[in-house]
Amino acid sequence: MHDIDHFTALALKLANASRSEIITRFRTGIAVDAKSDSSPVTEADRAAERIMRKYINEVFPEHGILGEEFGTENADAEYVWVLDPIDGTNSFVTGKPLFGTLIALCRNGVPIVGVIDAPAVGERWLGAEGQHTRRNDHPVQTRTCEGLDSAWLYATTPDMFEGANMDAFMRLKDSAWRTVYGGDCYAYGLLASGHVDLVCEANLGTYDFAALVPVIEGAGGVITDWNGEAVTMQTDGRVLAAGDTNIHAAALERLKG
Amino acid sequence: MHDIDHFTALALKLANASRSEIITRFRTGIAVDAKSDSSPVTEADRAAERIMRKYINEVFPEHGILGEEFGTENADAEYVWVLDPIDGTNSFVTGKPLFGTLIALCRNGVPIVGVIDAPAVGERWLGAEGQHTRRNDHPVQTRTCEGLDSAWLYATTPDMFEGANMDAFMRLKDSAWRTVYGGDCYAYGLLASGHVDLVCEANLGTYDFAALVPVIEGAGGVITDWNGEAVTMQTDGRVLAAGDTNIHAAALERLKG
Repeated sequence: MHDIDHFTALALKLANASRSEIITRFRTGIAVDAKSDSSPVTEADRAAERIMRKYINEVFPEHGILGEEFGTENADAEYVWVLDPIDGTNSFVTGKPLFGTLIALCRNGVPIVGVIDAPAVGERWLGAEGQHTRRNDHPVQTRTCEGLDSAWLYATTPDMFEGANMDAFMRLKDSAWRTVYGGDCYAYGLLASGHVDLVCEANLGTYDFAALVPVIEGAGGVITDWNGEAVTMQTDGRVLAAGDTNIHAAALERLKG
Repeated sequence: MHDIDHFTALALKLANASRSEIITRFRTGIAVDAKSDSSPVTEADRAAERIMRKYINEVFPEHGILGEEFGTENADAEYVWVLDPIDGTNSFVTGKPLFGTLIALCRNGVPIVGVIDAPAVGERWLGAEGQHTRRNDHPVQTRTCEGLDSAWLYATTPDMFEGANMDAFMRLKDSAWRTVYGGDCYAYGLLASGHVDLVCEANLGTYDFAALVPVIEGAGGVITDWNGEAVTMQTDGRVLAAGDTNIHAAALERLKG
């Protein structure tokens, strides 16, 4: 077995374990705590990250970990796992089933394995370097799009854009056909599966975007930062994903103004 | 059997038929047409409304019908069915599973039966005058909320608010704890089930809100227009729903400014 197969096997094991921790706590009236940045967190987030860290430490003790809830360990390692146990905690705590678990493995900062797992609706996207992205074990493919003016654009909320970022997003929104809010990481799964043309977001943490890269690229799509540069662990929190290369280029121009 | 039981039986039959028409067309790359108001519509919308109209005409030929896709018939009847085959067409056509079918029966303009059906996630809320609201046949109850500053607020998109409506919504949003976008009618189901505290929307058609009334009220919640008046077929498209009476009153004050 190649390294990448070992890595994807562990990523899937983490996704299974995380899903169990999360789904048993969904819609149970779980307590919501505010973190220091005032973002909400629950015992589901913590339990899911805890078990994922345990498995990583057991299987690859030399690997690093960056998790949303419990910080970093061994951050200078060649291989670093990047974990967001619940992306879309606002959805999770209000019973909306489109939150997801994000699991990435980065090699020297570059994402090479990514999982988007949506426990409440039973959907999982798996992407890995050199492999075709799969949703629930079936290959998926992004779709082509005739032009920006016929593109369906997703973003989680306009509240993620401020100042110049808001101006840039509004230019893109005005050029796209329609904009739909409220996707969290699930929107990138829809893009990988060819249902959505663009996702444009800002103010993301590394754990929000690292896992998206292998999923999108392995489905034939493009994902970069707002300058068109490859997304790595160092990306500044602004990402643009497209199913069609030409639409990505056109959207990038609109963001630049 | 009382009239209301005849009515809910038909409402459920319509929901079953509509669900079949819609679910078979979900994520099939169905063609999206633009209506005269530029809102999207598909053959799923049309097929679902067609079969619902057929059943209503067969069972209650003396009843009126107001449907989003095929207009009104016998609008002056005492009993009028109000149908939105797919509320959240933007979600439906982009593969997002939280769209829903809305079915209401109004007596002299007042909604007395309401169904919110979410085909892709298999959830259905049924409300009827004098009865407790049920989700998938289990009774549901809205939740209490300590204060507006701890309330979770939903709205489909900020794009539904313009001018003074936007000012009013922003006042409410600034007073609430958190705002989540992207719910369509599903947000009102979450409120009926006690997962969400407030839903505030504008620019809705009668078919977007009539079905919500029996669902929310039968779960212990409150739903009015932005002036605090009962929601009827004549409501101006601005609705405010709350799980807790006190929160509803506080939210109404914020909307009034």
